[in-house]
Amino acid sequence: MPNQYTKPLEREKVFRDPVHDYIHIRDRVVLDLIDTQEFQRLRRIKQLGTASYTFHGAEHSRFTHSLGVYEITRRIINNFVRNYPTQTPGDGLWDDRERLTALCAALLHDIGHGPFSHTFESIFDTDHEAITQAIITSSDTQVNQVLRRVSADFPAKVASVIRKDYPNQQVVQLISSQIDADRMDYLLRDAYYAGVSYGKFDLTRIIRVIRPYEDRIVFDFVGMHAVEDYIVSRYQMYMQVYFHPVSRGMEEVLRNLLQRAKHCFYNRGEDFRSASAALQPFFANDWTLKDYLRLDDYVMQSFFNQWQEDADPILSDLSWRFLNRKPFKSLLTTAGESLELRLALQKEIDHYGYDPEYYFGENASLDLPYDYFRPYQSNARTQIDLITKKNQVVELSQVSPLVNSLTGRERGDHRLYFPREVLHAIEALPESELNPNQQLILKAHKEETNDVTHHIQQRLF
Amino acid sequence: MPNQYTKPLEREKVFRDPVHDYIHIRDRVVLDLIDTQEFQRLRRIKQLGTASYTFHGAEHSRFTHSLGVYEITRRIINNFVRNYPTQTPGDGLWDDRERLTALCAALLHDIGHGPFSHTFESIFDTDHEAITQAIITSSDTQVNQVLRRVSADFPAKVASVIRKDYPNQQVVQLISSQIDADRMDYLLRDAYYAGVSYGKFDLTRIIRVIRPYEDRIVFDFVGMHAVEDYIVSRYQMYMQVYFHPVSRGMEEVLRNLLQRAKHCFYNRGEDFRSASAALQPFFANDWTLKDYLRLDDYVMQSFFNQWQEDADPILSDLSWRFLNRKPFKSLLTTAGESLELRLALQKEIDHYGYDPEYYFGENASLDLPYDYFRPYQSNARTQIDLITKKNQVVELSQVSPLVNSLTGRERGDHRLYFPREVLHAIEALPESELNPNQQLILKAHKEETNDVTHHIQQRLF
Amino acid sequence: MPNQYTKPLEREKVFRDPVHDYIHIRDRVVLDLIDTQEFQRLRRIKQLGTASYTFHGAEHSRFTHSLGVYEITRRIINNFVRNYPTQTPGDGLWDDRERLTALCAALLHDIGHGPFSHTFESIFDTDHEAITQAIITSSDTQVNQVLRRVSADFPAKVASVIRKDYPNQQVVQLISSQIDADRMDYLLRDAYYAGVSYGKFDLTRIIRVIRPYEDRIVFDFVGMHAVEDYIVSRYQMYMQVYFHPVSRGMEEVLRNLLQRAKHCFYNRGEDFRSASAALQPFFANDWTLKDYLRLDDYVMQSFFNQWQEDADPILSDLSWRFLNRKPFKSLLTTAGESLELRLALQKEIDHYGYDPEYYFGENASLDLPYDYFRPYQSNARTQIDLITKKNQVVELSQVSPLVNSLTGRERGDHRLYFPREVLHAIEALPESELNPNQQLILKAHKEETNDVTHHIQQRLF
Amino acid sequence: MPNQYTKPLEREKVFRDPVHDYIHIRDRVVLDLIDTQEFQRLRRIKQLGTASYTFHGAEHSRFTHSLGVYEITRRIINNFVRNYPTQTPGDGLWDDRERLTALCAALLHDIGHGPFSHTFESIFDTDHEAITQAIITSSDTQVNQVLRRVSADFPAKVASVIRKDYPNQQVVQLISSQIDADRMDYLLRDAYYAGVSYGKFDLTRIIRVIRPYEDRIVFDFVGMHAVEDYIVSRYQMYMQVYFHPVSRGMEEVLRNLLQRAKHCFYNRGEDFRSASAALQPFFANDWTLKDYLRLDDYVMQSFFNQWQEDADPILSDLSWRFLNRKPFKSLLTTAGESLELRLALQKEIDHYGYDPEYYFGENASLDLPYDYFRPYQSNARTQIDLITKKNQVVELSQVSPLVNSLTGRERGDHRLYFPREVLHAIEALPESELNPNQQLILKAHKEETNDVTHHIQQRLF
Repeated sequence: MPNQYTKPLEREKVFRDPVHDYIHIRDRVVLDLIDTQEFQRLRRIKQLGTASYTFHGAEHSRFTHSLGVYEITRRIINNFVRNYPTQTPGDGLWDDRERLTALCAALLHDIGHGPFSHTFESIFDTDHEAITQAIITSSDTQVNQVLRRVSADFPAKVASVIRKDYPNQQVVQLISSQIDADRMDYLLRDAYYAGVSYGKFDLTRIIRVIRPYEDRIVFDFVGMHAVEDYIVSRYQMYMQVYFHPVSRGMEEVLRNLLQRAKHCFYNRGEDFRSASAALQPFFANDWTLKDYLRLDDYVMQSFFNQWQEDADPILSDLSWRFLNRKPFKSLLTTAGESLELRLALQKEIDHYGYDPEYYFGENASLDLPYDYFRPYQSNARTQIDLITKKNQVVELSQVSPLVNSLTGRERGDHRLYFPREVLHAIEALPESELNPNQQLILKAHKEETNDVTHHIQQRLF
Repeated sequence: MPNQYTKPLEREKVFRDPVHDYIHIRDRVVLDLIDTQEFQRLRRIKQLGTASYTFHGAEHSRFTHSLGVYEITRRIINNFVRNYPTQTPGDGLWDDRERLTALCAALLHDIGHGPFSHTFESIFDTDHEAITQAIITSSDTQVNQVLRRVSADFPAKVASVIRKDYPNQQVVQLISSQIDADRMDYLLRDAYYAGVSYGKFDLTRIIRVIRPYEDRIVFDFVGMHAVEDYIVSRYQMYMQVYFHPVSRGMEEVLRNLLQRAKHCFYNRGEDFRSASAALQPFFANDWTLKDYLRLDDYVMQSFFNQWQEDADPILSDLSWRFLNRKPFKSLLTTAGESLELRLALQKEIDHYGYDPEYYFGENASLDLPYDYFRPYQSNARTQIDLITKKNQVVELSQVSPLVNSLTGRERGDHRLYFPREVLHAIEALPESELNPNQQLILKAHKEETNDVTHHIQQRLF
Repeated sequence: MPNQYTKPLEREKVFRDPVHDYIHIRDRVVLDLIDTQEFQRLRRIKQLGTASYTFHGAEHSRFTHSLGVYEITRRIINNFVRNYPTQTPGDGLWDDRERLTALCAALLHDIGHGPFSHTFESIFDTDHEAITQAIITSSDTQVNQVLRRVSADFPAKVASVIRKDYPNQQVVQLISSQIDADRMDYLLRDAYYAGVSYGKFDLTRIIRVIRPYEDRIVFDFVGMHAVEDYIVSRYQMYMQVYFHPVSRGMEEVLRNLLQRAKHCFYNRGEDFRSASAALQPFFANDWTLKDYLRLDDYVMQSFFNQWQEDADPILSDLSWRFLNRKPFKSLLTTAGESLELRLALQKEIDHYGYDPEYYFGENASLDLPYDYFRPYQSNARTQIDLITKKNQVVELSQVSPLVNSLTGRERGDHRLYFPREVLHAIEALPESELNPNQQLILKAHKEETNDVTHHIQQRLF
Repeated sequence: MPNQYTKPLEREKVFRDPVHDYIHIRDRVVLDLIDTQEFQRLRRIKQLGTASYTFHGAEHSRFTHSLGVYEITRRIINNFVRNYPTQTPGDGLWDDRERLTALCAALLHDIGHGPFSHTFESIFDTDHEAITQAIITSSDTQVNQVLRRVSADFPAKVASVIRKDYPNQQVVQLISSQIDADRMDYLLRDAYYAGVSYGKFDLTRIIRVIRPYEDRIVFDFVGMHAVEDYIVSRYQMYMQVYFHPVSRGMEEVLRNLLQRAKHCFYNRGEDFRSASAALQPFFANDWTLKDYLRLDDYVMQSFFNQWQEDADPILSDLSWRFLNRKPFKSLLTTAGESLELRLALQKEIDHYGYDPEYYFGENASLDLPYDYFRPYQSNARTQIDLITKKNQVVELSQVSPLVNSLTGRERGDHRLYFPREVLHAIEALPESELNPNQQLILKAHKEETNDVTHHIQQRLF
């Protein structure tokens, strides 16, 4: 890439960062990417969606996380250049001509995220990964214009890294594998902002032991415990923070709220449509990239704010619940048992005057903390390999009992969500007057707070 | 306050907090206040306004800060109860019947803040302190309803603490003095989120040495260095973070943007008005508390988002600048010299096609890091007093050279703001073609980057 | 214990501590115990023996650790008093009359430790636990005199807690169980001083969830992840810090050094005896408590310093090695294979001019990270029980896959130690000239650095 | 220095460090220096002498500090090489041929320290700076042998840096100026180990803004606040930690103890001499470098341990006081007033049966927190200069009010030390029976605890 534009900045620029101390920027293209409107938009999208309703400190945006992923990638590459520079093509060492591609892919890997991605995508059928690629390759975006200054094919290269079909898989794995710059930044950052200790691991050490090898990224055997610690941290963050039942209770409110807004769009007059102009294309399932980029948490919450006073009682109530943090209550269940409990709940929801279509949610949050490569399985994972001084390679779970205990089995739980008021109403009834549905609900509620066997059977965490 | 409602919770509730580890809640009334819509609204108002455009990590809300102020107050009072409980009325020790009043005032002290308070207030002539009191005393709010459950006069008492005319001045000073729970939380919290080390001081030690004495709060003499360190931290946070020229450059964009929107309101048709319904009462200077409580950062930014595509080119451009972080550039000046430079700048702003009414700003940010009590001065400060084991009292700046060096003199600077494009255009001119205004502007620009004498004379920081 | 001496101090005293911020002292007896010469002596005994030869920052003493154990115990008890005070005898809640007994036992639990305890005990057949009890109960010590001021039977009570036969087993388990104040302090403290992140866990949370229940200590079910995290931290500290092969290489030097000194005592003249007066009673296996209390790291190292110039070449060389950090080199082995390798090593050690009796060591360091109670096993462990809101109890490894993976199986390794010079000499030989012993040694060395299978088979960590 | 020995290590070696995370070693010579017996001896010398008797966590050695100074120097040089490499001789930029000289000087700058240097030097008239140079240049030491492997004149060059007459003053100032690697490490490290927050400042930022300029080291003007913060931290550490009256009370015990041992040496028989062989050369004021290198804290404390049981009651009592932390009590005084108080104290010390020659101490601890260069003053300091982007230079106190308040005036206090028992005895007397000396002593004692004016006049801190 011999190009006037790819020369390093005359003077390195730094941003103060609470997690990495400083973010160091030495390339004009990186600076210009940060200045694009598509990237600045990430300031207006929270990294953790509804998690700040449980961990109030976790109000950070995808902007800060994206800078962090860039910085970790930069540090790893610096180490590669110093210790593992390629000598001859195909020697499996680091080819530093990949540097800018890797840095840009790291910085932009989340640029397609929209507000409350998880929930939004399930309702409006959007796909943030596809949008990330569109932003990079579409000639309408500022991001694309900046990237093209490097070279005409540069946007395509960066998009290919995101899509994971870039020829140099070392670059791909830096950004996306079971231990990559993305995950490492979000664990550290989310833990920092939430104020929990679980997400901490020894990043400096991991950066020291990570290395290019053949067509992939591996880890020095001596760094095994640091990698193990990272896997354990990741597991604990999922169990303790990401899957917290109360945050999911807020997500369920949100899901129903968006569902109801869509319903209003189809069933209400022009005034509702014009008052929610920015969302119309999504209700109508006919949107452009430009429509998408107009959205952010601010626009969404501003609608909720407005809808609080809407004439539709369900839309208004759900908006109020979301804005004022009134999460749905949940009951733990299992795939096998959920049907009966779901029916009971829906009956009672209806009985107490709520529309079960908008006051009920089912949420199974599951994560596979780690897995080795399973060749015959679709979507097989790139396993974590350790390498000895003499280039003998061993897969992580073979040598770590901790990781082994987390390998190959999904962890999480399955919950049914509904208005807390329904439970309160049932609890207020005399025991003799409870109908079978109410009895079932109360039993599930009590088992959750009291019965440990119940937890174990249901593999709670 | 013998009241069913004021009994402690059966089981203490805690919120995880990155600054204080945990926020401990033992009173139902505190929990209920947090659940009110007025308090939940603070989640949608950033603590530091535009500072996150310079320190990207500082995206935290007034919600987290308010919890922190409550928690510090709670810890101080716990210490008072253990070590300085009143024995006889008027003995200057802590009367624990004030506990709930102090805690509620601490929690609610910022509840009247709106989006981008500083700028908003200067344009729309609102006053967040008056609004705080209105929220507490107006019978329409949920906050008031919760407070009234304690006793009919409880809202008035809490408001009186905020207004500083509460009879027990110890309670007032806990929340509002030169070293109070409010300032201590925001220094620690803003430093944590911004990722700077300047704001850190030894809170645990200060809580140990703070004590009630006569009609005020004083500090054990042995804790002098911890208090000194707090004053120094405060000074450094103002100089380094709060007064950062770039954040102020964003504020100047915002100020002009709001000014222009107001202009549009008076000069445009009904469509502009209806599209900015939530702001109308403020444009018209005829708003209610309910109007005010509908506002937050989300609503505001959502307007900017919409206005980016407005027909008014100035409104659209300024909205774009704000959303995409294009701060105004600044030149350092002094009260004495600013007139000439201002005129030159306004000429050139106009010359390059910008309307000086909306593309110029003047901002003097000054802070008095500390002062002793000056009886003949209006708005005199409560000084910080240290007390020896034998109850001899001495004012802080008398014994601390560091504090003395910061006493009684305002620190900060005075800057003129304008579009960066204007400076770039002038810099691109051949020197021979510069007119006197352009020369003056360039000279000021160069002096700022190069001439230290200039800094000293202008008492930069 | 109604006694003038047991009234709280008029003013709490605090010591600054890097791990717990402050150590709070509210009882005269605690203050007086700290001032005794037996307790002050702990300043001169390193907490981690030879570990600072690997982790140079870990130079802290048993004095700081003992204060930390006291402080954690104090915080737990404070929480018990607030939340679980006994109402009627035998209700399984906390009886605060046990407070002082628990605090003194916590403070004194390690007072019988001597210099390099582990190694010293193996050579001189001392027992620090027995000595701890002797210091507490022997009327000659200052510790005993202080304790007796509380009541005549107080020393016996404190000793009984240490001996674990104290009637109230809650007190015993606070100080000594699989998750007690002792372990919690040393993990946090050793990690802090060594500068590693592995030992960190959420102490505040654990203190919140620990509770008295029936005749033991249990943990709220909701705190499961914090307890799990503690077990994982403990495992990692053992694997990474406590069992580090290099620290053990220094221990092996020390063991041989002390062995040789003992040999000299029996085989040399009076001058050697008089020059090592303080150690004589131990060489002769006829020592008193007073002799023991005269020892500390300083006295020991001072002997080594002196012995560096001793006429005995082995004693002098080993002293030099220890003082100047020349650890023995090690080879990994297994119980099954060690015999052959040991013989080969001893042959070669001898061949290169070293006396195998003093230049060889065998060290199997194994730890059981966690186990549940196994009734038919001697030395069965008190398991960690979790308790639900409805008092249902479940053992930790039943609900934590992480802990389960570490349960019931010892972790660590088995190593043979010898002078590094021997390996260097063998490595310098041409391959064709290697004898079978040398071949075996080189093979073991290479397998350790290269062969991962070897590691797995031998359950390295 | 083109030499086989100066090539970088094949694989960088790292030591885990709590302050700098890792110490990175890339040169064989540095590794070999660490392995010398003179450097390993620093493990046995506490960095802060008696301070751990006040801040119990501060037990770290000069070994860890020396590694830290090396590491900071290394990081600064790395930054120099990247940003300010010399182009032509004499251009004032960094000449990287100085690298190894600077690193070795940094590592070795404290190698001449002995046990309790401050006190030891005052009694035995040793000089640790001269000894540092001797260790470097004397052909008997391992340090010298390692250095000579680089080149024959290398030891002289390193010594010259320590002596501050090395031609390249940039190298000198890195190790020794008002803001150098030595001070930066000890502030951070001492604060970390003591557990106080005062010593913290933004090292990363300072390393970013430090730069070579002409014949010295200067700081980017934009880093002014970080440098200011460092000066303030330094001041606070002196006032709060280094000058703590209790640590000095231990030093006074030590001083008298060594004085008494010297007396015994001249007045007792051969048995005392032989039992204190290692100290004899110092008592006799006739010692060699080898004698000096045999000393460390361990040897010294071992003597105290032995002397506790010595026949000389003064030596025995003072040894006991030191080992068991019984500091002398102090009274604050001033140069002007000390005479009268001193006489009174000595009278009373004698009156209560203590020998005033060994039970009295006078200690004025004063520090000049910062000063600008004063050309007509001997021992003038290298001032701290800031430099603008256009190379305009300004001295720090000109632009920082905080630093200005600390400039050019010594801070500290002057105290008289004596056995606490004497004060207790006087306090126990009825007021009517107090003689004038006793009255004076009590008055001074009361004024110190109560009278703030007294503090101010005496410029206490």
